[in-house]
Amino acid sequence: RINSARLWDSLMDMAQIGPGVAGGNNRQTLTDADGQGRHLFKDWCEAAGCSVGVDTMGNMFATRAGTDAAALPVYIGSHLDTQPTGGKFDGVLGVLGGLEVLRSLNDLGIQTRHPVVVTNWTNEEGARFAPAMLASGVFAGIHTEDYAKSRRDLDGKVFGEELARIGWVGDEVVGARKMHAMFELHIEQGPILEAEGRDIGVVTHGQGLWWLEITLTGKDAHTGSTPMAMRVNAGLGMARITERVHQIAMAHQPNAVGAVGQVKVFPNSRNVIPGRVVFTVDIRSPEQGKLDLMKGEVIRAAQAVAAELGLGCSIEDVGHFDPVAFDAGLVKIVRQSAEKLGYSHMDIVSGAGHDACWINRVAPTVMIMCPCVDGLSHNEAEEISPEWAAAGTDVLLHAVLEVAGV
Amino acid sequence: RINSARLWDSLMDMAQIGPGVAGGNNRQTLTDADGQGRHLFKDWCEAAGCSVGVDTMGNMFATRAGTDAAALPVYIGSHLDTQPTGGKFDGVLGVLGGLEVLRSLNDLGIQTRHPVVVTNWTNEEGARFAPAMLASGVFAGIHTEDYAKSRRDLDGKVFGEELARIGWVGDEVVGARKMHAMFELHIEQGPILEAEGRDIGVVTHGQGLWWLEITLTGKDAHTGSTPMAMRVNAGLGMARITERVHQIAMAHQPNAVGAVGQVKVFPNSRNVIPGRVVFTVDIRSPEQGKLDLMKGEVIRAAQAVAAELGLGCSIEDVGHFDPVAFDAGLVKIVRQSAEKLGYSHMDIVSGAGHDACWINRVAPTVMIMCPCVDGLSHNEAEEISPEWAAAGTDVLLHAVLEVAGV
Ligand SMILES: NC(=O)NCCC(=O)O
Ligand SMILES: NC(=O)NCCC(=O)O
Repeated sequence: RINSARLWDSLMDMAQIGPGVAGGNNRQTLTDADGQGRHLFKDWCEAAGCSVGVDTMGNMFATRAGTDAAALPVYIGSHLDTQPTGGKFDGVLGVLGGLEVLRSLNDLGIQTRHPVVVTNWTNEEGARFAPAMLASGVFAGIHTEDYAKSRRDLDGKVFGEELARIGWVGDEVVGARKMHAMFELHIEQGPILEAEGRDIGVVTHGQGLWWLEITLTGKDAHTGSTPMAMRVNAGLGMARITERVHQIAMAHQPNAVGAVGQVKVFPNSRNVIPGRVVFTVDIRSPEQGKLDLMKGEVIRAAQAVAAELGLGCSIEDVGHFDPVAFDAGLVKIVRQSAEKLGYSHMDIVSGAGHDACWINRVAPTVMIMCPCVDGLSHNEAEEISPEWAAAGTDVLLHAVLEVAGV
Repeated sequence: RINSARLWDSLMDMAQIGPGVAGGNNRQTLTDADGQGRHLFKDWCEAAGCSVGVDTMGNMFATRAGTDAAALPVYIGSHLDTQPTGGKFDGVLGVLGGLEVLRSLNDLGIQTRHPVVVTNWTNEEGARFAPAMLASGVFAGIHTEDYAKSRRDLDGKVFGEELARIGWVGDEVVGARKMHAMFELHIEQGPILEAEGRDIGVVTHGQGLWWLEITLTGKDAHTGSTPMAMRVNAGLGMARITERVHQIAMAHQPNAVGAVGQVKVFPNSRNVIPGRVVFTVDIRSPEQGKLDLMKGEVIRAAQAVAAELGLGCSIEDVGHFDPVAFDAGLVKIVRQSAEKLGYSHMDIVSGAGHDACWINRVAPTVMIMCPCVDGLSHNEAEEISPEWAAAGTDVLLHAVLEVAGV
């Protein structure tokens, strides 16, 4: 078993970096705080005897050597970046759980046949730079590096420049590494495991997603002296589309969600009818057919609302992944590890996107989930218990050992 | 008649200060650009032989002496501040039209019995600091100076500190000046005069307004892994209330308008269900009963939407004025001046709030309107013709002469 107290201490130490405003974290990707978090992780890995490589997207790889020089490494990875008002565990548990596996192997004096590598993937959240899982997406050949590096945040800052600014452009070619397998431990970010009273979620599938960015163009005009009939109100269009996105997701229950998360209104003045709005739509389903259907419905609804209000409407895809099925063999190994350790478990579908979903395109991957309180995530109040963290990391250790060989 | 070319040149010179991004202006109150605009206006006034006083709210008063030491001054005033994406004429025409009246009196060698004072009122727009007409409101005793000086902008900057920063805290006590009458020349900001082909709007009334700031509190949560039934989506609440505000205004046609202009979403991330939103509602009517009715309807609608979504809801009044009737005697003088000069005219109700609406509480006031292209205002594309500007200023000159006496 892993060292539960050490794991928890590391989680709490990392949470000191980039504190939020309400007990959580704001360690958004490529900020100074992200840079500090990376240094702490690197120091810990080197102290555990690992060499740390970095690729040109800033992805970090801490390697513990294996006994077979020809064997491909087994990867464990997730992310250290957070939402602007994020929790202490989303992503961080997967990286520091991986580190705890390496530390436990050291403690136990275990030599694995395959090397074991712990990875911190850059910009998983997609909060600052869309899309999410950007750097694992480049690694898996989904995005070009040029595309990724040219992404801009809300202030117009450019990904590539920000990565250089914090000093984490490495020299490895992105995606050059070959993987024997990859594991990702993550909090569920949903309510199911806690409600069902299970310690472990064996993640068999992940739901797919579309992120759309909609721009509506109307006409700035005075809120007082412009008659109702003369208005071309982009804000009203956004309101109607926000409601339609909700209705579309509700009409596809179960197995569908939808919401508007990010909004910019121009000129954003009390007495000006909004002449332009830019906002983002997030729709998801584990069913490919439903996902594609919903996307079409959202686009048609947006166009219909724009037409009825006389607004210009442009819709950009800023993120997408199809529903994922994780590697059946690895899924079985995770299930058996939980079983062997005596943890209660159930199969589960991931509601969120994860780096393992992209890496699944280039290597066998699987995920292990642990419960989180009230299913709450992307919220500073996100919480898990040390026991949940330990159970997930124990299962990770045993599954990795099974695959990496002793 | 006034000097139309000089008036237009001054308007264009002032528009050089605080240029916008699309041909208009961003000379928001208490910004550096506002400070520069004030200096230019002061220089012009002094060159025209006026003494310039400033009160502790930054209101500027340029006085041309009269022949009767005991006679109260006749005021002409409006504002030099603009919206973030504002036009070159909204407010500016009223101040520089007033200056042109003084210059014309100089050219013609006319001595008036009453002094004539041209005023630039601070923060008329209310875009940066709510409410609108803030400093004329303090002058008229509607707001305390403490209240006004403690108002904050979206970045949390404080009115009193910003006024000091740009160096325009004067020494006069606000509201100490007594007025014989006040005139305000302004562009219509609506489509009626242009549609009716009239040169001059004789403003008999102004519509009333309520500005509400609504805060909805839900729960930040993951857009992917949070089931629809568990969401407490503040952004969806805002969308529904935005639609309801529109419906309420539509149900009270004619003589009612309503819109949401300013929006802040927290944490404003693509994959976070908004846990908090703050947005502003602007509702107006020239009918007192309708205005009060609409306010109640908006508040009840907001509360009902919050209840149906399980959101916390707080509603703050951030601006209000009742419908106004301008001074009947002055209205008649404006109408007669237009008539005498051969300008086509019609009676009109102001759709926007103006400084003259507050000053009406402490002195007889009236407004003169000129058309604007397509009724467009609070938009950088706001446009008027030199002829319209000249006609309005001619009427202003003659009406002022009538009241100030020769
Ligand atoms: N796990 C997680 O929150 N990933 C961010 C991408 C997403 O929104 O699903
Ligand atoms: N004239 C003008 O735009 N005033 C600002 C206050 C209002 O919104 O009516």
